[in-house]
Amino acid sequence: MAVKQYVVIGLGRFGTSIARRLHEAGQEVLGIDIDEESVEDAEGYVTLAVVADSTEEKALTSVGIKNFDCVIVAIGDDIQSNILTVMLLKNLGIRKIIAKAQSKRHGQVLDAIGAHWVIYPERDMGERVANQLLSPNMLNYIELSKNYNLEEIIVPSKMAGKNLRELDVRAKYNVSVIAIVRSDDIIISPSPEELLQKEDILVTIGNRKDLAEFSSIE
Amino acid sequence: MAVKQYVVIGLGRFGTSIARRLHEAGQEVLGIDIDEESVEDAEGYVTLAVVADSTEEKALTSVGIKNFDCVIVAIGDDIQSNILTVMLLKNLGIRKIIAKAQSKRHGQVLDAIGAHWVIYPERDMGERVANQLLSPNMLNYIELSKNYNLEEIIVPSKMAGKNLRELDVRAKYNVSVIAIVRSDDIIISPSPEELLQKEDILVTIGNRKDLAEFSSIE
Amino acid sequence: MAVKQYVVIGLGRFGTSIARRLHEAGQEVLGIDIDEESVEDAEGYVTLAVVADSTEEKALTSVGIKNFDCVIVAIGDDIQSNILTVMLLKNLGIRKIIAKAQSKRHGQVLDAIGAHWVIYPERDMGERVANQLLSPNMLNYIELSKNYNLEEIIVPSKMAGKNLRELDVRAKYNVSVIAIVRSDDIIISPSPEELLQKEDILVTIGNRKDLAEFSSIE
Amino acid sequence: MAVKQYVVIGLGRFGTSIARRLHEAGQEVLGIDIDEESVEDAEGYVTLAVVADSTEEKALTSVGIKNFDCVIVAIGDDIQSNILTVMLLKNLGIRKIIAKAQSKRHGQVLDAIGAHWVIYPERDMGERVANQLLSPNMLNYIELSKNYNLEEIIVPSKMAGKNLRELDVRAKYNVSVIAIVRSDDIIISPSPEELLQKEDILVTIGNRKDLAEFSSIE
Amino acid sequence: MAVKQYVVIGLGRFGTSIARRLHEAGQEVLGIDIDEESVEDAEGYVTLAVVADSTEEKALTSVGIKNFDCVIVAIGDDIQSNILTVMLLKNLGIRKIIAKAQSKRHGQVLDAIGAHWVIYPERDMGERVANQLLSPNMLNYIELSKNYNLEEIIVPSKMAGKNLRELDVRAKYNVSVIAIVRSDDIIISPSPEELLQKEDILVTIGNRKDLAEFSSIE
Amino acid sequence: MAVKQYVVIGLGRFGTSIARRLHEAGQEVLGIDIDEESVEDAEGYVTLAVVADSTEEKALTSVGIKNFDCVIVAIGDDIQSNILTVMLLKNLGIRKIIAKAQSKRHGQVLDAIGAHWVIYPERDMGERVANQLLSPNMLNYIELSKNYNLEEIIVPSKMAGKNLRELDVRAKYNVSVIAIVRSDDIIISPSPEELLQKEDILVTIGNRKDLAEFSSIE
Amino acid sequence: MAVKQYVVIGLGRFGTSIARRLHEAGQEVLGIDIDEESVEDAEGYVTLAVVADSTEEKALTSVGIKNFDCVIVAIGDDIQSNILTVMLLKNLGIRKIIAKAQSKRHGQVLDAIGAHWVIYPERDMGERVANQLLSPNMLNYIELSKNYNLEEIIVPSKMAGKNLRELDVRAKYNVSVIAIVRSDDIIISPSPEELLQKEDILVTIGNRKDLAEFSSIE
Amino acid sequence: MAVKQYVVIGLGRFGTSIARRLHEAGQEVLGIDIDEESVEDAEGYVTLAVVADSTEEKALTSVGIKNFDCVIVAIGDDIQSNILTVMLLKNLGIRKIIAKAQSKRHGQVLDAIGAHWVIYPERDMGERVANQLLSPNMLNYIELSKNYNLEEIIVPSKMAGKNLRELDVRAKYNVSVIAIVRSDDIIISPSPEELLQKEDILVTIGNRKDLAEFSSIE
Repeated sequence: MAVKQYVVIGLGRFGTSIARRLHEAGQEVLGIDIDEESVEDAEGYVTLAVVADSTEEKALTSVGIKNFDCVIVAIGDDIQSNILTVMLLKNLGIRKIIAKAQSKRHGQVLDAIGAHWVIYPERDMGERVANQLLSPNMLNYIELSKNYNLEEIIVPSKMAGKNLRELDVRAKYNVSVIAIVRSDDIIISPSPEELLQKEDILVTIGNRKDLAEFSSIE
Repeated sequence: MAVKQYVVIGLGRFGTSIARRLHEAGQEVLGIDIDEESVEDAEGYVTLAVVADSTEEKALTSVGIKNFDCVIVAIGDDIQSNILTVMLLKNLGIRKIIAKAQSKRHGQVLDAIGAHWVIYPERDMGERVANQLLSPNMLNYIELSKNYNLEEIIVPSKMAGKNLRELDVRAKYNVSVIAIVRSDDIIISPSPEELLQKEDILVTIGNRKDLAEFSSIE
Repeated sequence: MAVKQYVVIGLGRFGTSIARRLHEAGQEVLGIDIDEESVEDAEGYVTLAVVADSTEEKALTSVGIKNFDCVIVAIGDDIQSNILTVMLLKNLGIRKIIAKAQSKRHGQVLDAIGAHWVIYPERDMGERVANQLLSPNMLNYIELSKNYNLEEIIVPSKMAGKNLRELDVRAKYNVSVIAIVRSDDIIISPSPEELLQKEDILVTIGNRKDLAEFSSIE
Repeated sequence: MAVKQYVVIGLGRFGTSIARRLHEAGQEVLGIDIDEESVEDAEGYVTLAVVADSTEEKALTSVGIKNFDCVIVAIGDDIQSNILTVMLLKNLGIRKIIAKAQSKRHGQVLDAIGAHWVIYPERDMGERVANQLLSPNMLNYIELSKNYNLEEIIVPSKMAGKNLRELDVRAKYNVSVIAIVRSDDIIISPSPEELLQKEDILVTIGNRKDLAEFSSIE
Repeated sequence: MAVKQYVVIGLGRFGTSIARRLHEAGQEVLGIDIDEESVEDAEGYVTLAVVADSTEEKALTSVGIKNFDCVIVAIGDDIQSNILTVMLLKNLGIRKIIAKAQSKRHGQVLDAIGAHWVIYPERDMGERVANQLLSPNMLNYIELSKNYNLEEIIVPSKMAGKNLRELDVRAKYNVSVIAIVRSDDIIISPSPEELLQKEDILVTIGNRKDLAEFSSIE
Repeated sequence: MAVKQYVVIGLGRFGTSIARRLHEAGQEVLGIDIDEESVEDAEGYVTLAVVADSTEEKALTSVGIKNFDCVIVAIGDDIQSNILTVMLLKNLGIRKIIAKAQSKRHGQVLDAIGAHWVIYPERDMGERVANQLLSPNMLNYIELSKNYNLEEIIVPSKMAGKNLRELDVRAKYNVSVIAIVRSDDIIISPSPEELLQKEDILVTIGNRKDLAEFSSIE
Repeated sequence: MAVKQYVVIGLGRFGTSIARRLHEAGQEVLGIDIDEESVEDAEGYVTLAVVADSTEEKALTSVGIKNFDCVIVAIGDDIQSNILTVMLLKNLGIRKIIAKAQSKRHGQVLDAIGAHWVIYPERDMGERVANQLLSPNMLNYIELSKNYNLEEIIVPSKMAGKNLRELDVRAKYNVSVIAIVRSDDIIISPSPEELLQKEDILVTIGNRKDLAEFSSIE
Repeated sequence: MAVKQYVVIGLGRFGTSIARRLHEAGQEVLGIDIDEESVEDAEGYVTLAVVADSTEEKALTSVGIKNFDCVIVAIGDDIQSNILTVMLLKNLGIRKIIAKAQSKRHGQVLDAIGAHWVIYPERDMGERVANQLLSPNMLNYIELSKNYNLEEIIVPSKMAGKNLRELDVRAKYNVSVIAIVRSDDIIISPSPEELLQKEDILVTIGNRKDLAEFSSIE
């Protein structure tokens, strides 16, 4: 994987989490925050951390921000600084600007001034949690298209000990089982004879409604 | 899908997002916040919203909290109220308590007093964003096991127009293509003759490293 | 003059001054402020004044804001509300949005989200004051083009009692006198024989530098 | 132009704007503010900037304030400091004191204690904006006397292609066209044969009502 | 004594003390304060007390302030309101305006805008206390002229039992004893034979230095 | 006059006024305040000024407070510090403790814990002002006993040009004139033939009511 | 037990604890606090609770405070209100005034103004905790005199199964065992033959040092 | 007594009181507080005091907290820091953690996360005070079991001069007198002939109700 150079502005919980993950993956990460304590706390999981007011052009140019591949504006509470920072980055010609939005309206402002990717972490995470509550057997999911999901579903207890053929999942529930996760193994495109075991996790693809039905079998 | 009864305490962005999604899915949702304005704003996407101080036992019993299936404590900034509310719910014998944590330490306290599921939305969302930055062609992912991921990857432009057999993805990259998302269609367990098209999205399973390699082909 | 309908959001000194002037000129003016006291003070110089939070869509639609010809966003201290209000007005399809900016960067954001006219009252007024200090005899000015100004200049005391012909202002200073203000009278295109009097005010057009020279004769 | 020495007290947006313009014009400008950050920001557009409390006599005498030609008190929010500073300057015998007022009452106090020029930037700018809204074709104006204005008016589209004689502006509208601004040229005292062009701007003198009529032709 | 009508604006300790004394003497006193609690506390020692913001013209005219003989502005901490109130009273043509000043500079502003009597209670009371400390036998004093004081002095213990003649105060100390206060009696122009008694108090006139000498005899 | 040593704790307007007067009279004055700025401002009118928290025993003993003759506690706004400081001084055995009280109740606490002299500057000054308003011709007064005052009264205009005999002040008004202040001279025990002049000031002794009558002759 | 009437002023944790205990014991308890919420929370464990400012004489007399046997001033954070309330109660002639002090100095003020019992809850509780830490086997203690304590001590494990005679506690440790607490029984003045059992608690009297020795046997 | 090593976190009144008592008893005590002033004040009654934020793991490990025998968390107002500190100490494996709780709910959280001893100083002290008010003759008490108390009771005045036999306390009141405190002497297991004296203090054991009866004899 090529090493890229990132700037994370705003070292709160969200920004810190991004910076740490990028840094662990061997990327170069410059952390910026207006608060000295946050900058000190960041040492160890960024390449470099500096105290700076990101709404000041001088502050950003003095760290050579134009040489970075991507800038993530993770400023949270202060919408005003968040917006003015994105505006300034836009004027400086930054190639990729990612920004955190607090609300739909805030996100629209960020879109209008040219942020390349606007993220709503609280809203998105809230939806993920709600979806998991709605399908307690579902562990994880990806929205593949408007109607289809890929979902990771715990095998319903009453199916354990049976094979896929007799269960006839495809016909009965209109759901395709494309892999089985068993402990630390993955069985890809399992054969119809495969015997399901307790605690198996099924990787399934299907229409959202059908999957909801399937994942709520008790 | 059976209708359940949820309480969401703390109607900030995170709590609101959970409440709205549950409500849209036809569940019964009671919203609680100490702030009157937040409660007013919640009308329309919860079944009922009330102003109450969730650290007061009387306040919770008077809304009949024991009759609910699940309580989500989405109180954000005020760690103290967050902890005392979870303690109180625990004492009241609530069956399922989900709580938002601000930090690792905070999460440990919630675990110790018996929250059933502790969530770190900012940290988790930060990791998701970082992972997507690290693999620009990767759109989404699920961690299947310690080593294996399922990833949704945009077809590398140079592979368009070739079929899976000649590309020999399995052998060359040690990655299994288990489905292809093409516009709004899903091709499950695609045949080796399937011609990849520009803008196809591959659903792949593999070792994390191999997938990282594969998803950064340009 | 046709009667139009204006909304002024933010009834501080700047907003109040606009609202009063429009109202005196017989226009219909709706004043909006989030602060009750400001709204009460506005009575008498607007057609109607209401307390409302202009960052809330419901608040704006409930006063029928789409029926107004022009909305002036005069919110001063709270840049965030200023920006979100303009964004909201833009989404509502308001025909003419005028907004006050605090700084260059703020103004750029307002431009980007589509404000039709961005005003910097403190900056512009500061420049007017500085210009008048620089040319003490100059009372007022209009920038006609990149190089040419029209200026209102007090007649230099040593020119009083002489006519324009003998003074030969055109040739000597490269400045055209196109009108003379004498007490409450205006002499348009004065004849070369016109005798200048003490306290006459000359309306002149010329190159900016030439005018600066002319207006600093003592 | 002779170089003069100015002091600007209060480096907010208004004070900054004055200081920058004077400094650009080659004047000597000393900036004073009680806030260190404002002083640092001022560097580059003043000759010298110092941190000082302008309500303390020692602070002002130590910068030799008596040697300056003119002091502008641009302190905005803190009426008390604004008034006490002007009082102190008056006692020190400063020749020219210009002060910004927040309200009519505040302005009266400044007049009473002897400020030489009291400015109401927000009110004045508000009026300019309102006037331009009232006459959309009017770009700029100067009040020449109680009844007469000089106004810069965009040529009404239906007049383009006609000369002043046939339009008979003087007779029909009681308005004198004393100059035409065409791109970057100025035509002074245009001949009656002059053909008006689209986007011409007319410099006109007339009774205020007549001009309002003329500038609202569509 | 004729009954007059007073307004006391600002019902803190100083204003309250004035209002109570005037009211006890049978005068009509209207008390005004912006703080409701202060107004309630004032009941009983004013004729009428109202809550009002004295910097608002409407507030003052609505209580008919022009009909009062004298207005005392006893507003203490808020210099700005103190000054703006005095300005407003001046504009309303109040015959006698008395105002409390916080500092010399503040007092100069009040003088400049036309207050008829400016009082510095803390400063003046401080001086009275200091003077009494300096002359422990002196109970009270009046400054009659630049050099002469009238002082109330406790009889030095060693003089008790002697008459004025043998003590020869006039010659020895250059001080005239013009009255003696004995218990509740007053002996005016005491005869030289008058025997001084322990605890007599002498009313004396003399040069300030001589009196200081005399009042420090032990 | 013997030089004594004073401590003034609390360098606000009241404390400053005491300290300055004592220092001008050649006394040794130590100023103490918890606020650094107040201490700096005090330099020049005290012998020494130090920053210290007077509620800390160490702070007071380290300046050798036991060696001073008298301590004035002029702390104003912070009743708690005022009381605790007096308590501490009492414990340290200070010979003379003078303390400023904010209210009657506060004064009672100070009395109870043993302050030697409790002063109410705002209340006392308020009374002095009220008394002067009540007798506009009275310039100054001393309360000699329960019923008798000594007052300094401007000569009523209609008495100018007459002598004391014909005016018969003693008989008509029951008031004794014991001295006349004329410009900078003092006439003690004036003869009955003494002609009163315009602007003379009479030093009078009498019953309070009679004096009130006499001083309101117009 | 006779029923008495108590007032508890200040319904924080300390005041609440007193009020509740007295009320449980059947006493009449009036609770007073300046904070409405605290008063509402007090309902149920006082006879009556009212919102009142205890530094106002009217507030106290209107609840008939003179009829109560004892007033506990449990106001904690606001030393000033605490002191002024005690002063006021003293003036009203309350028979028994108990007051909580924050510090030694504060306690001295309360003593000086006449509180009958001054309590230092934090300090006293801190000492109790420290004493128990110092003697881990000691459960509780009473200071009987300057040198002697009564202490409740867990029987050292090595003494279990032996009788007091053979252990010879009196001679060896100079400590008298005057009672033994065994489960829920009390053996008063145990006989020398009494066999000590594991988990017995000894009630002992002795010199403090000897007890410390005895209670740290392991 | 063996010397142990204690840490006291939070140097308010409660923590200070514990620290001082332990230190006086010759123990090693490390004091920690986040506030510099509190740390300075602690010098003299702890072995060492340091400024540190106890919610930061690094801060605690850098003082070698694992080497201490016992940590007392006396943080009062900030429940959040109190809880997070206890959690952190628990994770670090501290052997004995004592923590102060503000409320029952707070105490439950501390129990749940594993504090070894939770203390409610305000509540406990309040109960002690109430108990003493209920039995005015009772000076001190220990709860021996569910029903039995040991109490220190002042001898009722009418019993003075009589011996225990004739008073027959045991039979009449069902109370055992196990010791008498007379001045500084202790009479253990007094003989029935022992004559009670005025001001004797009886150490008694009995049923709680009987003791209440006995201690309220007047």
